Amino acid sequence: MRCIGWQEGRVWLLDQTALPLSCVKLEYSAPSDLAAAIRMMKIRGAPAIGVAAAYGLALTAYHSTASNREDFLRELRETSQLLRGTRPTAVNLFWAIDRMLAVAEGERNLESMRNLLISTAIRIQDEDEERCRRIGEGGSALIPDGVGVLTHCNTGALATGGFGTALGVILTAHSKGKRIHVYVDETRPALQGARLTAWELKGAGIPMTLISDNMAGHFMKEKKVQLVIVGADRIALNGDTANKIGTYSLSVLAGAHGIPFYVAAPSSTIDFRISSGDSIPIEERSPKEVVEIGGIRIAPEDIPVANPAFDVTPAENITAIITEEGIHYPPFAKSLSGVAANA
Amino acid sequence: MRCIGWQEGRVWLLDQTALPLSCVKLEYSAPSDLAAAIRMMKIRGAPAIGVAAAYGLALTAYHSTASNREDFLRELRETSQLLRGTRPTAVNLFWAIDRMLAVAEGERNLESMRNLLISTAIRIQDEDEERCRRIGEGGSALIPDGVGVLTHCNTGALATGGFGTALGVILTAHSKGKRIHVYVDETRPALQGARLTAWELKGAGIPMTLISDNMAGHFMKEKKVQLVIVGADRIALNGDTANKIGTYSLSVLAGAHGIPFYVAAPSSTIDFRISSGDSIPIEERSPKEVVEIGGIRIAPEDIPVANPAFDVTPAENITAIITEEGIHYPPFAKSLSGVAANA
Repeated sequence: MRCIGWQEGRVWLLDQTALPLSCVKLEYSAPSDLAAAIRMMKIRGAPAIGVAAAYGLALTAYHSTASNREDFLRELRETSQLLRGTRPTAVNLFWAIDRMLAVAEGERNLESMRNLLISTAIRIQDEDEERCRRIGEGGSALIPDGVGVLTHCNTGALATGGFGTALGVILTAHSKGKRIHVYVDETRPALQGARLTAWELKGAGIPMTLISDNMAGHFMKEKKVQLVIVGADRIALNGDTANKIGTYSLSVLAGAHGIPFYVAAPSSTIDFRISSGDSIPIEERSPKEVVEIGGIRIAPEDIPVANPAFDVTPAENITAIITEEGIHYPPFAKSLSGVAANA
Repeated sequence: MRCIGWQEGRVWLLDQTALPLSCVKLEYSAPSDLAAAIRMMKIRGAPAIGVAAAYGLALTAYHSTASNREDFLRELRETSQLLRGTRPTAVNLFWAIDRMLAVAEGERNLESMRNLLISTAIRIQDEDEERCRRIGEGGSALIPDGVGVLTHCNTGALATGGFGTALGVILTAHSKGKRIHVYVDETRPALQGARLTAWELKGAGIPMTLISDNMAGHFMKEKKVQLVIVGADRIALNGDTANKIGTYSLSVLAGAHGIPFYVAAPSSTIDFRISSGDSIPIEERSPKEVVEIGGIRIAPEDIPVANPAFDVTPAENITAIITEEGIHYPPFAKSLSGVAANA
């Protein structure tokens, strides 16, 4: 199952704001419309928005009427600016744009630039799925038989080029016959856990219990949860990890209960330019996401609301980071440096 | 402001499931209807449901056509059974019923039983408000000037006979001129924070920010929160405290950030018959509260859902318990014993 794909000059995606109530396939040919879809979280998940950004540039390449290399590059840079402005935290978006621009700049011929951009975007998605499968394979070794696993937000096929990161680890362990019960944080405010992760787990037939985020500590205390595994939106070189709001609290709770806390992400999520999480910009989203659910107001009018979409989990709270290159233990500055060399 | 009251053989209450979108006053003359209202959380909050239970018995007393003491007592016991079956965790409910039954059993004359039951129910509410004001006065000494205070669920006038417990402490500190910024946990699944606490704080003009529950750790890490104060549904003799689901996680997070964690509750919340929180029954409510918000489904159909309405915070996570008798520090077995003597 994939949540996004390329088809003859158009990008299709599953509208993740409509799931699980309805399964709506959207199509885009204008990069600006695709950028708006990213901003509105019709597609979300760090690896998936990297893929979407690559396809945004592929759309520009496909539909460009530029007659010379300079005009073509200018159009690409304009689309890049648009895409960079959609969401600030997940580094995969910037990584994919940079990779696409470098491909374009490395070619002289207009037609080969066009073809190479389209094939690179498709390759970025294929590679992401392949990386996820390697993360799943490597990470599944960390999942004992018969455990309760708590996860947050959505990190499945819907969040990636395909297959998933943290959820991919769970899927792989399940497919190897390990008995797993997944505790799914609903993940307020946008409810990616309740809407998307529960939908994917139900489809995969993996036992689960949906909980509200504030139940996590209770179920750890009750010894229902033996490990936590989450995805990431940006990982600094020291291992500090930005991920969906609530992840930091989970890492503290896991530590207090002696439960391992794992992060699973492809190497495209590592920001090799920043040394710590202090440099990660945290997106502040609309208060509407907190005070309205499905158009229903759940709070008084005109009150101050905070809506940071992410938080930063310090490296010391993380037991291990799983990438397609393997399982990385602290100190991450050292263990992630090998990934940097291969990336 | 009060959320419940007695008026000539009828009990009125503000429908707390309708707030803050609409302010609906409901009236009951049948104890069974009032019991249903408690079960549906049209009135909630441990001290308030104690008051409601007392009024339930007052309704029976007022409308009884019993011609002898035995029949009258039987009717009261039937209503008691009905009320005891509404919600299992908050001990105030059982405390109020026991007090009302003891009053009835202590009288011989039918008419004086009737009158005394009605006046006792009214007194239970008045005393609860008075206790809350003393909690507010005593507890406000714990609130420094210029702090961020995080609270969970609703513990204001809507949760009590009047004024509030944890929120009463905040109100009192504010009225003494202390500058406070309140971080309000929305409190999934029933959203008492977003719906009720935000509404009360807005009415009182106290600066606040509404957050989703999973943001609490983030704002502690960002040093926006200097103390946590919550209410309680049942306190064991050793200080273990049952309160709204999510409270336990907050206590762990507060501890990890070196932030004091206070519990504010009247002595009617202390269960003098149990030595630890292990004996506190935790209500499991309908999965609908988690998977539907305002009638809108937010998760796939037919998935397992957990909905424990409360969790237990161990005494060692609690900095102090504030009752109308004062501020009680660990060891609580000792410091609460004085309250027992006065209760």
